[in-house]
Amino acid sequence: MTNLGFIGLGIMGKPMASHLLVAGHTVHVYDVVSEAVQELASKGAVACSSSKEVAQKSDVIFIMVPDTPDVEAVLFGKDGVAEGIKAGSIVVDMSSISPIATKGFAKKLDAMGVKMLDAPVSGGQVGAEKATLSIMVGGQPEVCEQIKPYFELMGKNIVLIGGNGDGQTCKVANQIVVALTIEAVSEALLFTSKAGADPAKVREALLGGWAQSRILDLHGGRILERKFAPGFRIRHQQKDLNLALQSARSLGLSLPGTAIAQELFNAVVAQGGIDLDHSAMVLALEALANHKVSE
Amino acid sequence: MTNLGFIGLGIMGKPMASHLLVAGHTVHVYDVVSEAVQELASKGAVACSSSKEVAQKSDVIFIMVPDTPDVEAVLFGKDGVAEGIKAGSIVVDMSSISPIATKGFAKKLDAMGVKMLDAPVSGGQVGAEKATLSIMVGGQPEVCEQIKPYFELMGKNIVLIGGNGDGQTCKVANQIVVALTIEAVSEALLFTSKAGADPAKVREALLGGWAQSRILDLHGGRILERKFAPGFRIRHQQKDLNLALQSARSLGLSLPGTAIAQELFNAVVAQGGIDLDHSAMVLALEALANHKVSE
Repeated sequence: MTNLGFIGLGIMGKPMASHLLVAGHTVHVYDVVSEAVQELASKGAVACSSSKEVAQKSDVIFIMVPDTPDVEAVLFGKDGVAEGIKAGSIVVDMSSISPIATKGFAKKLDAMGVKMLDAPVSGGQVGAEKATLSIMVGGQPEVCEQIKPYFELMGKNIVLIGGNGDGQTCKVANQIVVALTIEAVSEALLFTSKAGADPAKVREALLGGWAQSRILDLHGGRILERKFAPGFRIRHQQKDLNLALQSARSLGLSLPGTAIAQELFNAVVAQGGIDLDHSAMVLALEALANHKVSE
Repeated sequence: MTNLGFIGLGIMGKPMASHLLVAGHTVHVYDVVSEAVQELASKGAVACSSSKEVAQKSDVIFIMVPDTPDVEAVLFGKDGVAEGIKAGSIVVDMSSISPIATKGFAKKLDAMGVKMLDAPVSGGQVGAEKATLSIMVGGQPEVCEQIKPYFELMGKNIVLIGGNGDGQTCKVANQIVVALTIEAVSEALLFTSKAGADPAKVREALLGGWAQSRILDLHGGRILERKFAPGFRIRHQQKDLNLALQSARSLGLSLPGTAIAQELFNAVVAQGGIDLDHSAMVLALEALANHKVSE
């Protein structure tokens, strides 16, 4: 019987770990917030007091924490995974973090006889709760096959993109497209309103042609109805765009559109909108158009 | 029997006017290029020597010329439509021009007892030849109904967006979305390559999620295969983005993403790519990433 570990029990990690538990697996859990650990323990998980302890007791260790430094701390910090892990174990990092850092982490673990997969998800809290996440995997095919039964308990659309880091690269690429498509739709619909045409009719006409996108459909609809409750928060979109822009700098490429999108999100944050849905980017463009010079 | 007129017999206007002819209508034609007039006349059209003459002989006058100043010249210039037109005639401008100027043209014609529709199209040369254009109409519903039988000879997806100018507004909105979505896909796929992952696999994975768009599918495919034969030329995309940016300035709004997209197209033009497909925007991003400092 494979012993599982799950580190990071936030709004994503908690339901994901629960799906593993409900399927009958033994899951060793840890989080810096002890209440989260207790909650999972009350559902049958084995409470641990550190990432190191999870690693000592598990063969497969899932990680779901906010950002690159958090994964680094979980893996290689004091009382981290590296201090407790056995050769032959597998680390599956489902956080959304830097593809470049991920390659480094995989190399360090490999030197310890530990295989790693990066497996960031999309689908958000609802996807985590309903086990309908899309999972973008980087790592060795045979390792991915081995972990697939667990992925299938948490998600639906599981794609092996390539080697270590490539899952994270795919996630970043996804977030670049999402942010810029939201900008496309926001600029077009604001233009339409200002020009005095009906944005609902324009959206409908555009959905039938080259401008069609899932974002025009869904986020376009949210913009028209001004429903900015998340959904996917600007807070998280900004974290992912930060990964894009930092990685671009390291890799030697320039992403002018992504940079503008990030700055427009900054402007919405300046309005107090950090926890609004990312479709609220349109509020930044509206501020640019409507804010008046004060005397 | 309604007498038709068609002014502007370029790569779009020629096949569009031909569809009207083939359906058995009497079509009076004019173009500044007399060879184009002769070609249509050899197919049965009535050759005219000015826009004024077309207007004198026609009840419904279609216009398909490159840009706002061309439409202005056709309508109100020397030997223009306004000099020959009868009250009760209808002007149908199928060019892609400024929505703001369009409203002014419609007002001036209205004062002469002439109704106008703006009816820009998307679908390009192929759409014009196959009579599968999408037509975005602005004007009065009863006038649109009256002209619909002719639209149906030239296109398939005919949508009345609103009053005068709203068809042009919809076309501009479409082009904003198209340009920015191409930028989204270009930045994401270049990021993917530079990060060492397989852009074909990433595109495929993204098509299954929030990043899905018709542009990701089609233009993404072109970018991967480096097939930059047009399709839709950067030359024409730039004209349409210019309409967006000029109109935005007049209307009092700011389109930072559209501006960046236009500048990236400028960079492809600097490389000699003005007649490449608009998916070649990726060449500008590649230049930003790959061009080396010379000593």
